[in-house]
Amino acid sequence: MIHITFPDQSVREYEEGVTGLDIAKSLSNSLAREVLAISVNNEIWDLTRPIREDAEIRLHKWSDDEAKHAFWHSSAHLMAEAIEALYPGTKFGIGPAIENGFYYDVDTGDDVIITDADLPKIEKKMKALSALKNRYQRAHVSKQHALEYFNNKGDEYKLELIRDLEDGTISLYSHGNFTDLCRGPHLADTSPIKAIKLLSVAGAYWRGDEKRKQLTRIYGITFPKQSLLDEYLEKLELAKERDHRKIGKELELFTFSQRVGQGLPLWLPKGAQLRERLENFLKKIQRQYGYEQVITPHIGQKELYVTSGHYEKYGKDSFQPISTPQEGEEFLLKPMNCPHHCEIYRAKPHSYRDLPVRLAEFGTVYRYEQSGELHGLTRVRGFTQDDAHIFCRPDQLKEEFIKVIDIIHHIFNALDFNDYVTQISLRDREDHTKYIGSDENWEKAEQAIIEAADEKGLETVIEYGEAAFYGPKLDFMVRDAIGRKWQLGTIQVDYNLPERFDLEYIGADNQKHRPIMIHRAPFGSMERFVAVLIEHTGGKFPLWLTPDQVIILPISEKYHEYAEKVSKFLNNYDIRTLIDERSEKIGKKIRDNELKRIPYLLIVGEKEAESSTVSVRRQGEGDKGVMELKEFAEFISQEVDSQLATIDTIE
Amino acid sequence: MIHITFPDQSVREYEEGVTGLDIAKSLSNSLAREVLAISVNNEIWDLTRPIREDAEIRLHKWSDDEAKHAFWHSSAHLMAEAIEALYPGTKFGIGPAIENGFYYDVDTGDDVIITDADLPKIEKKMKALSALKNRYQRAHVSKQHALEYFNNKGDEYKLELIRDLEDGTISLYSHGNFTDLCRGPHLADTSPIKAIKLLSVAGAYWRGDEKRKQLTRIYGITFPKQSLLDEYLEKLELAKERDHRKIGKELELFTFSQRVGQGLPLWLPKGAQLRERLENFLKKIQRQYGYEQVITPHIGQKELYVTSGHYEKYGKDSFQPISTPQEGEEFLLKPMNCPHHCEIYRAKPHSYRDLPVRLAEFGTVYRYEQSGELHGLTRVRGFTQDDAHIFCRPDQLKEEFIKVIDIIHHIFNALDFNDYVTQISLRDREDHTKYIGSDENWEKAEQAIIEAADEKGLETVIEYGEAAFYGPKLDFMVRDAIGRKWQLGTIQVDYNLPERFDLEYIGADNQKHRPIMIHRAPFGSMERFVAVLIEHTGGKFPLWLTPDQVIILPISEKYHEYAEKVSKFLNNYDIRTLIDERSEKIGKKIRDNELKRIPYLLIVGEKEAESSTVSVRRQGEGDKGVMELKEFAEFISQEVDSQLATIDTIE
Repeated sequence: MIHITFPDQSVREYEEGVTGLDIAKSLSNSLAREVLAISVNNEIWDLTRPIREDAEIRLHKWSDDEAKHAFWHSSAHLMAEAIEALYPGTKFGIGPAIENGFYYDVDTGDDVIITDADLPKIEKKMKALSALKNRYQRAHVSKQHALEYFNNKGDEYKLELIRDLEDGTISLYSHGNFTDLCRGPHLADTSPIKAIKLLSVAGAYWRGDEKRKQLTRIYGITFPKQSLLDEYLEKLELAKERDHRKIGKELELFTFSQRVGQGLPLWLPKGAQLRERLENFLKKIQRQYGYEQVITPHIGQKELYVTSGHYEKYGKDSFQPISTPQEGEEFLLKPMNCPHHCEIYRAKPHSYRDLPVRLAEFGTVYRYEQSGELHGLTRVRGFTQDDAHIFCRPDQLKEEFIKVIDIIHHIFNALDFNDYVTQISLRDREDHTKYIGSDENWEKAEQAIIEAADEKGLETVIEYGEAAFYGPKLDFMVRDAIGRKWQLGTIQVDYNLPERFDLEYIGADNQKHRPIMIHRAPFGSMERFVAVLIEHTGGKFPLWLTPDQVIILPISEKYHEYAEKVSKFLNNYDIRTLIDERSEKIGKKIRDNELKRIPYLLIVGEKEAESSTVSVRRQGEGDKGVMELKEFAEFISQEVDSQLATIDTIE
Repeated sequence: MIHITFPDQSVREYEEGVTGLDIAKSLSNSLAREVLAISVNNEIWDLTRPIREDAEIRLHKWSDDEAKHAFWHSSAHLMAEAIEALYPGTKFGIGPAIENGFYYDVDTGDDVIITDADLPKIEKKMKALSALKNRYQRAHVSKQHALEYFNNKGDEYKLELIRDLEDGTISLYSHGNFTDLCRGPHLADTSPIKAIKLLSVAGAYWRGDEKRKQLTRIYGITFPKQSLLDEYLEKLELAKERDHRKIGKELELFTFSQRVGQGLPLWLPKGAQLRERLENFLKKIQRQYGYEQVITPHIGQKELYVTSGHYEKYGKDSFQPISTPQEGEEFLLKPMNCPHHCEIYRAKPHSYRDLPVRLAEFGTVYRYEQSGELHGLTRVRGFTQDDAHIFCRPDQLKEEFIKVIDIIHHIFNALDFNDYVTQISLRDREDHTKYIGSDENWEKAEQAIIEAADEKGLETVIEYGEAAFYGPKLDFMVRDAIGRKWQLGTIQVDYNLPERFDLEYIGADNQKHRPIMIHRAPFGSMERFVAVLIEHTGGKFPLWLTPDQVIILPISEKYHEYAEKVSKFLNNYDIRTLIDERSEKIGKKIRDNELKRIPYLLIVGEKEAESSTVSVRRQGEGDKGVMELKEFAEFISQEVDSQLATIDTIE
């Protein structure tokens, strides 16, 4: 008998060789129907794999990410089986589960081309195969065996993958007529895969290398119920409407230029205005929390990054050094602001009484990304971090960390992101070689984060192996209005840069001591945050923040002059206005401008011009009646003021 | 007889071969005593050089730059004569007049080293030689003759210089025992050089090439009267006290780090705050003038600068291209913002009704400068321009240009720079090959600038050959509180970039037209302007702008708590405060803080704590009596408000 420990710490005895499915059945039949995967000692396993020793387990239903991962991974195999059936001789690259669904990279030979039009056919085949309830079967095999199998099959991609593997670590998964090289885990059988949608076809170079063959990548998603798929497709449609690239173009917030370079956003006037308003909002809060703004250059000598360790870690993969025409100097575009802030800290001596020093900067950094990875404002090559570095004493660390959690909480709430979770990223438990700095310092830092998060009652997940190379971190993931998760802010404890830059303060004991650094960025970057804000609000920004607050619609050209007068009057109240001077009918003007996401529409004609009034409409809500100019100005100013008062005082 | 035309267009007849000195004597003896040089057909000549043809002339007294140039150039020769007398065998490099005085690069051989301690001895010798009233005599000689002379003398530096000259263009100047290779012009004789001060000794590579020999550079200045020298030295002393590098350090405004790189300023919290306040001030005015802020990246593809022409012009001499680890792309640090703004203009179609488009950006640019050229914040490798580009129709050009003159006028006056002159920089009249763009466009642009400056009644000087390679410009030179001139703002008309970027708008005729661009930067750069502002104000910034407005001085530790209370109270009024918590006597605290240029000092002790008051001192003015907290807060807020009201409404 072996002892199985459940998440609630209860322990039960089972026969050696018991499987996850057996355990689920032993608890209840309905559970057995719903369970999709099992974690055994924090490793995800097939439900059908025998457990032969005492273990801690968790059973995963659809709501767990672990279950979805196994589900979509199994779906990728199912799709491969369907493709092999429909296109015999197809060779297979890799076919992983991804955040939403799965894909498989396939090579159907030079004569066959799979396009979007073929997807329904493959879907149909997948459904037929799924109904066969074939079991996913795991076989641990020798390298020799695996090579022989795929050699016989003639699949050069799998052969290449196997050659890179170590003997003794190789497993194959088979179901129905299809066998794949795979680490697993998988579902017990194909039957739960009930709702299937193949989404798109794209090209993808084998192993991401543009010099190698381009394979066909087919994306799909599956669910255990049709209603879940319907819901997902609806959300996808919603997400398309909210795509920040689409709205950013419509609202003229930002653009890209091939001549300037891909992944380098150009902020248009309305976008720059929005961004400045956000920066001022952050600056104000940060001032209240005792931060001081600094400004540093966008380049630094290579030596600066050799000192910081960034060059060793990223040098080869990033923008290459900039040389000078004389004097043989070498500079790098800054990938991070921290080395510059360390140099500012070093610019004068510090006493223990001066700490903490909190240096903040909206610092624009540059990091190379492959062009295929770039995406709107969320994945760019140049971005402005809402960055700050806190230099504090060891006895201040936890308090400072908590204050950073407070400020991030304040900021998220003020901008209506009330739903967020956090992830604590610690070192890989097995392999410490990837990180710089002493074990002792790492442990202290990890402990401080865990305690602070605990004290603030944060909903946290701990991930091992996800830490930055220089320290552990706490990341904030917000959920947007349509339920998508976005990674935004980050807080990181760092014992390493203070060592590398030999940072010091004089303690009460008159001796030199080493401060600790905290890196933090509530938004992550202005680019990413604005993208998320657009997708969250669908471009309908709060009144205080939105580029244009009011659009004035004169009924005919006769009232352009009065529209100008209204505009000037409102501008004196710092209200941002536009005038629609097109010679269109008022009905069309209203309809067109309703789509522009400007909160207030003011209609002005003879009646309004004579009585110095405006007819007010709220976007999406309709008519709000006639108001005198001053009345409207005060009404809207009050709305802005009350928003600002709220965001300033959130606790 | 020849005809000599005077500046007032009067014409007189003189014998052929008449000299400047003769002409001066013919007018008045007192003039002849004061005149130092002559311009003949816009070329500066020796007073003793015979005029053999009809000519337009101007006689130059000390107040003219032309006179100073000849005076200091002659002084350099006098110093060389003194050095040759004191250190026989000395070899001479070059010895020009400079903006203030002159220098000579000399090689006294390996055994003799001239240091600051030797300067009085050389000065004394110069005075003795000057009293001899030796005449400066010009000899036009053949290359062969010049080579023989310096070969005999054994001066390899002069020989090298002569070898680069064309035969027929070579002249020698002799006075007393000294003969130099020299283009002239010079004084008639040494007697006007009455007041002499040698200032410093430095090393300088022969021909600026660090691989060649280092010569000894001796700087000096001379005047026709001792009182002028005294005045100059006093001003030099004043300037030293106002040196922005010294004050910037004392006030903790900015710093440099060898590790980040020379010429790359790091703005410390107080400096960043000051700069932000200045930027906000500019943004506000610019908004009133219809500018729109944009934000663009600090790099651009090499192709962008090939398109703009910057690469061809500056590519080799600037920071070298940044390559990418894959994809073979090449980027450059942006040396200017204009190409990026052109791409923003191109991001959407424009109608004639949309123009002018005024795009503004506080854009940080990077330009390589040799380390020897770097100086504090006035000569750096990275700086933030208060940049804007106006895209307008031809019929709007003059009006827009005038509006830019207006905004610069507004800004300078608001910041108390009331004394400025302007320079119109046009093409070299002889050589048009240095410039890009058609002759016709250049002429239109030059005319527009001249007319606009004329219409605004600006005090202008026209300089030929000083235009940018892409267009003519109007530069603003301000005079600071101690009379020094600084180049700040610039306005440039540009017909070229719109061509190169193929910029268009649709005219009222429904046809495509080319807009014209105006580049403008009132400050030039934030770095340069802050440097000039420091040197202008001696670091005593106006109350609205200064980093710390109030310092609170508790009489003893007992009153720290009350000081904190006062500080918080004032912070609620947006008043920026500091507390001096050192355990020093109050007298010392007052003395120390008087030096820190903080406008208000508040002394708090028992009396003040009990009555909720503060004892107010104005920096540099002394006691202002006791005030209640609210009274003081309102008093100081009113001072700030009235300053802001003034700077907002200057016409």
